[in-house]
Amino acid sequence: MSTRIYLDNAATSYPKPEQVYTAVDRYQRELGVAVGRGATRTGNEVSRTVRSARKRLAELLGAESPDRIIFTSNGTDSLNLAIHGLLQPGDHVVSSEMEHNSVLRPLAWLQEHRGIDVTFVSADSSGQIDPSDVRDAICPETKLIALTHASNVTGTLQPLADFCEIARTARVRLLIDAAQTAGVVPIDLRQTPIDLLACPGHKGLLGPLGTGVLYVKPGVEEELQSIRQGGTGSVSELQSQPETLPDKYESGNHNAPGLFGLEAGLTYIQKRTIPSIRQHEQALLEQLLDGFRAIDGLQIHGPNDPSRQIGIVSVTVDGFEPQILSSILDESFQIQTRAGLHCAPGVHRQMGTSDFGGTVRFSVGPMTTENDIETTILAMTEILQSS
Amino acid sequence: MSTRIYLDNAATSYPKPEQVYTAVDRYQRELGVAVGRGATRTGNEVSRTVRSARKRLAELLGAESPDRIIFTSNGTDSLNLAIHGLLQPGDHVVSSEMEHNSVLRPLAWLQEHRGIDVTFVSADSSGQIDPSDVRDAICPETKLIALTHASNVTGTLQPLADFCEIARTARVRLLIDAAQTAGVVPIDLRQTPIDLLACPGHKGLLGPLGTGVLYVKPGVEEELQSIRQGGTGSVSELQSQPETLPDKYESGNHNAPGLFGLEAGLTYIQKRTIPSIRQHEQALLEQLLDGFRAIDGLQIHGPNDPSRQIGIVSVTVDGFEPQILSSILDESFQIQTRAGLHCAPGVHRQMGTSDFGGTVRFSVGPMTTENDIETTILAMTEILQSS
Repeated sequence: MSTRIYLDNAATSYPKPEQVYTAVDRYQRELGVAVGRGATRTGNEVSRTVRSARKRLAELLGAESPDRIIFTSNGTDSLNLAIHGLLQPGDHVVSSEMEHNSVLRPLAWLQEHRGIDVTFVSADSSGQIDPSDVRDAICPETKLIALTHASNVTGTLQPLADFCEIARTARVRLLIDAAQTAGVVPIDLRQTPIDLLACPGHKGLLGPLGTGVLYVKPGVEEELQSIRQGGTGSVSELQSQPETLPDKYESGNHNAPGLFGLEAGLTYIQKRTIPSIRQHEQALLEQLLDGFRAIDGLQIHGPNDPSRQIGIVSVTVDGFEPQILSSILDESFQIQTRAGLHCAPGVHRQMGTSDFGGTVRFSVGPMTTENDIETTILAMTEILQSS
Repeated sequence: MSTRIYLDNAATSYPKPEQVYTAVDRYQRELGVAVGRGATRTGNEVSRTVRSARKRLAELLGAESPDRIIFTSNGTDSLNLAIHGLLQPGDHVVSSEMEHNSVLRPLAWLQEHRGIDVTFVSADSSGQIDPSDVRDAICPETKLIALTHASNVTGTLQPLADFCEIARTARVRLLIDAAQTAGVVPIDLRQTPIDLLACPGHKGLLGPLGTGVLYVKPGVEEELQSIRQGGTGSVSELQSQPETLPDKYESGNHNAPGLFGLEAGLTYIQKRTIPSIRQHEQALLEQLLDGFRAIDGLQIHGPNDPSRQIGIVSVTVDGFEPQILSSILDESFQIQTRAGLHCAPGVHRQMGTSDFGGTVRFSVGPMTTENDIETTILAMTEILQSS
């Protein structure tokens, strides 16, 4: 294991629990067969583990059944399935300036090529969306509300319960991008019903890169077209895509080693529990914000309040381009952060950080320690003092 | 390592070279960062390896540059990008009865939802497509010829050079499904120019499941729309999808551990060479066909000729349902095969094996040994004698 301090968990979590590495390697060396493609004993074991991953996700999210969990190749793939699968020419969408390019770019594509209309609501200076702006943006043509649960730049948590209530009242479908919150912030679909919930498997859910998840609420599959068709290992004689879940949306071979790793990550999360992970990350966030507030010349963007955000802190420093600051942290202190726009240009327009080249983002994870944060605060203090 | 004999390499190759397992595990434990998403030293190493995988593929295929190689999540994803990305309402497609559901089902979806017209040419009793049937099926509306390089059921190799010549003469785009041939049969894009070549990364290319490849010929990207949009780690300020390759078609996080494994698989192939792998598999195929021909009551479907097929043998046995025969091989002899339609219903209509529940398929790989084949022939002899 390297001695670097990894603070880019918002991109992908690292390190993963040891069990994740072991599960991937064991699958690769000892099993190796495709998922759901043969009735051998090895094949049955592989299918059972993939089924277990679905079951664990359904339990964690409060989903109706494991079949509501669709496996994709990443969070972007999940969002594209939801957005391209649901929208028809003439539909209107309510989204926000706080979204990642994984929501903005499919919507922009549909605006240009399919005659979809989109209203982007803005946020306040802490990155918070006002639910009444969402409500006011709904029109008779509105088919979908597509919003992030928490910003990948500022960490700002959005009012999920309000979004659910607005969508329910307006009878509009609700898509939530839980890229930054699944596995980190409790989500209970029984309390906050969501039509489509998209997230990667490799961030808070602690699986390997190459995995993604889309939850599909019962009934939504009748409106949601597949965006990829092909072999499903089921009803092979049928030339059209099967209509049953999860097969309708899962064509081609699964990332079996990835799903073995994801299953191990989910097992770890269920044992440690999401509230306990959230508590851990909130404590680190408090420590990081306290330390950063004491450094002159460092500007924190976002809520600056652990109760209103997840474990992400975006900063700018006068006189330092974000890329330069991030490189100094990497090269002189072995601290890995992310510099730039973080694939979310709208957020920087809201924050006024577009012209700076974005921000430097520090993002913690379940394996981050107090010591990592202390070292990071000291490093930032030293860099700013010597400048 | 288990003692089973794995003869399902047409689904996914197993075992992979040891270096593949090592590369995946090393990435997971020691690197762990996302591809192209940050300028840290670890990030740079990860990007270099992914670049190396593109470069090795371009070398193996004779592609113009590494940027023509698009990474996807599996062969089906590659085929969907090619088919959905290229076709517009009113277009006509020439395809065949020998195709996998990964081609048939996207085409069926486009027939139903987008007004695409498709002609499926048939094959002879060995699974061979007559190039003149393809030529005759072309009409003024034909935009695309979409054909497999070799059947995943019978192993029949199709006349690739003829397909290229027909497409070139008719000025029609050519999509080749190389799922069963990439890494196994020499393909040189300089000799046989193909507009779009799709394959998985986890079959003949020896990478892990969760990887796929689409080669895009220069110029084709002007007609080929992306089917998934999102963050690319590049020009984040742009709300529309970048137009540069490979970014245009690669949104969201890459399967980094998968691509590390694929890079290691490609390195192995380049060292051993594709002609040598082909020779190895042809010798095993000859041995298997010789052995099977001597067994009374066993019927071989396909060319029954190692020079005209790849390392796949599909059989039926009077009195045995394919699923039963495959289960006996697994449970009594630890020999893993695949029974059923193999996601290619048209092939069974051509072979007359639909009503039998398909075939039992034996497929060899670069790690299969003479001893594996000998044991398999003895097992089949024993099963048929005792019945």
